[in-house]
Amino acid sequence: MSEKTQKSTRARWKRATSYDVAELAGVSQSAVSRVFQDGASASKQMRKRVMAAAGKLGYRPNAIARGLITQRSNMVAVIMSQQTNLYYPEVLVQLTQHFSNHRIRVLLFTLKSEGDIDSTLEQVLQFRVDGIVTAAMLSRAQLATVQDANIPIVFYNRSLPDIPSNSVRCDQEEGERWLVAELFDSGHRTFAIVSGPEDSSVSTERTTGALQKLREKGVDGVTIVTGDYGYDSGRSAFAGIVDRRGGPPDAVIAANDVMAIGCIDEARESYGLDVPGDVSIVGFDGTGPARYAAYDLSTVRQPVKRMTEAAVSMLIDRIGNPELSAEKRVFSGERIRGSSAEFAADLD
Amino acid sequence: MSEKTQKSTRARWKRATSYDVAELAGVSQSAVSRVFQDGASASKQMRKRVMAAAGKLGYRPNAIARGLITQRSNMVAVIMSQQTNLYYPEVLVQLTQHFSNHRIRVLLFTLKSEGDIDSTLEQVLQFRVDGIVTAAMLSRAQLATVQDANIPIVFYNRSLPDIPSNSVRCDQEEGERWLVAELFDSGHRTFAIVSGPEDSSVSTERTTGALQKLREKGVDGVTIVTGDYGYDSGRSAFAGIVDRRGGPPDAVIAANDVMAIGCIDEARESYGLDVPGDVSIVGFDGTGPARYAAYDLSTVRQPVKRMTEAAVSMLIDRIGNPELSAEKRVFSGERIRGSSAEFAADLD
Repeated sequence: MSEKTQKSTRARWKRATSYDVAELAGVSQSAVSRVFQDGASASKQMRKRVMAAAGKLGYRPNAIARGLITQRSNMVAVIMSQQTNLYYPEVLVQLTQHFSNHRIRVLLFTLKSEGDIDSTLEQVLQFRVDGIVTAAMLSRAQLATVQDANIPIVFYNRSLPDIPSNSVRCDQEEGERWLVAELFDSGHRTFAIVSGPEDSSVSTERTTGALQKLREKGVDGVTIVTGDYGYDSGRSAFAGIVDRRGGPPDAVIAANDVMAIGCIDEARESYGLDVPGDVSIVGFDGTGPARYAAYDLSTVRQPVKRMTEAAVSMLIDRIGNPELSAEKRVFSGERIRGSSAEFAADLD
Repeated sequence: MSEKTQKSTRARWKRATSYDVAELAGVSQSAVSRVFQDGASASKQMRKRVMAAAGKLGYRPNAIARGLITQRSNMVAVIMSQQTNLYYPEVLVQLTQHFSNHRIRVLLFTLKSEGDIDSTLEQVLQFRVDGIVTAAMLSRAQLATVQDANIPIVFYNRSLPDIPSNSVRCDQEEGERWLVAELFDSGHRTFAIVSGPEDSSVSTERTTGALQKLREKGVDGVTIVTGDYGYDSGRSAFAGIVDRRGGPPDAVIAANDVMAIGCIDEARESYGLDVPGDVSIVGFDGTGPARYAAYDLSTVRQPVKRMTEAAVSMLIDRIGNPELSAEKRVFSGERIRGSSAEFAADLD
């Protein structure tokens, strides 16, 4: 690095201080601090005087240095896996917006897969975030590390059984059980399931819920094919199902909307089947494309706005008071009767 | 806050120091520093000894404090507007992944609209980020503020004319000009445009490109309707076009894929039109749903992977050397000939 470069790098950090502003404004340094601190009192006149001096000097409070002093970084970590499940971006944008309303910033960590969390977690802790929202699963040991560091954490759409931990989730099993009940009660008798990636706990819950209800209804011989939440995997999953069964089942239950859409396109295009005339296909999530007229999915919509609000307020409460006992909030999904499945109209 | 709470909040910050680790390991503090510093040398044995002591004490380097000392926070800001344009989440995930490969973390700022940037920018600067990638437009005054603070910035899909600034973008105008040329040369003579939100500079470039080419081809009487990048706005835009023209035009040019899909559904469902038999409809972005068989859009795909890689390396170069002169990189979009528009097969 040249000397000039170093100087200019340093210029980013060594700027006018609150003392410089105080001197120019003819006030005390603590008065300058108060003006720049949220919620601290300062007269209108004082504020005007200080802001004028700050503007002249190009002074800007250093949020990072302040974090070291106040022991609050005003940053939270959001951990997401990079899976192609379409509803995650919506979750991320909404979390960020809600945190931003509380003047808290989101430090984003994306995992290539949920298994990738160990090194990420270490990074999260080094950045001294005030709290964590994770949409990736943690092991018991990983959760213990976070709890040892006294950092509040909220699980999004995940929870650890038998461990007091904070979580906000959609009831995946309940949603799948409703879809299966609707399909069964309107006459479907042969079923296939397109599950998501094996390390997706959400997919596991959905598949478990569907299989439970199918067993209760006395359905066996369920074909299960694994996809990756993406469109192409939905198409090949449907082909795989037809191949293994020697024909389409009465109904296909896909672990998310995008794979359900892939199944519908494959059924129509490659097999000339009518959906839902020849085969009913259902999804999960209630993402944008679920509503597109060509698909009009029967699905379960996650109440993302309410869930993200709940996660944010749950975390903020625990940042303010780390002694609060753990809480789990479970939201029922919204039941969408689209035209991709034949449901008996008068039921439910 | 109770005393107990305060203590536990403090416990997050007042943990074992590198001196404690050095003492337990029987090595110097600088040896501990070296073990935890990327790229610094330390023998395998030293590393083992230090890591064992660190593990016992629960020591973890404080990335924030280190940032104040090294004058590098290892955080960059990514600014995105919250518009419903589907390709943004993909951009965000890819940027985060690329930065993460360089051990740089993303502090995320989302705007309700592009107009919302002023207060956000102040926050960005207070967090002493090493650099900024913005997918929201800045005014000249705002860019000057960032440059005064000596923080490198890269514009994503935006650029300021006549100002030396770094940008990576897809050639929106070129893409639209190609779409229009294809449509015109295969016989389409009456056109409508569905533009995006008025404060979206990307939409403005796309609409401008389409209109330029239409004028060159001698087409006038183009109907222009404004949408918000969302599906429903595409549907109502198509209805608005038919209403204003007393019938469908030969071709509809939508400023993004999602609105094009809305137009197609409205044309088919509400007007019983065949796409592309009765009306050709084209989009832009090449997002996931563009490929769904029911739509199979003619569109221009942004090379998001290459663009995000370019933005990340452009920013990292400038964090390392702030004196590098400005650079603009413009990527041509990938031309997708789907079945949503009748294109003469032998042209290009």
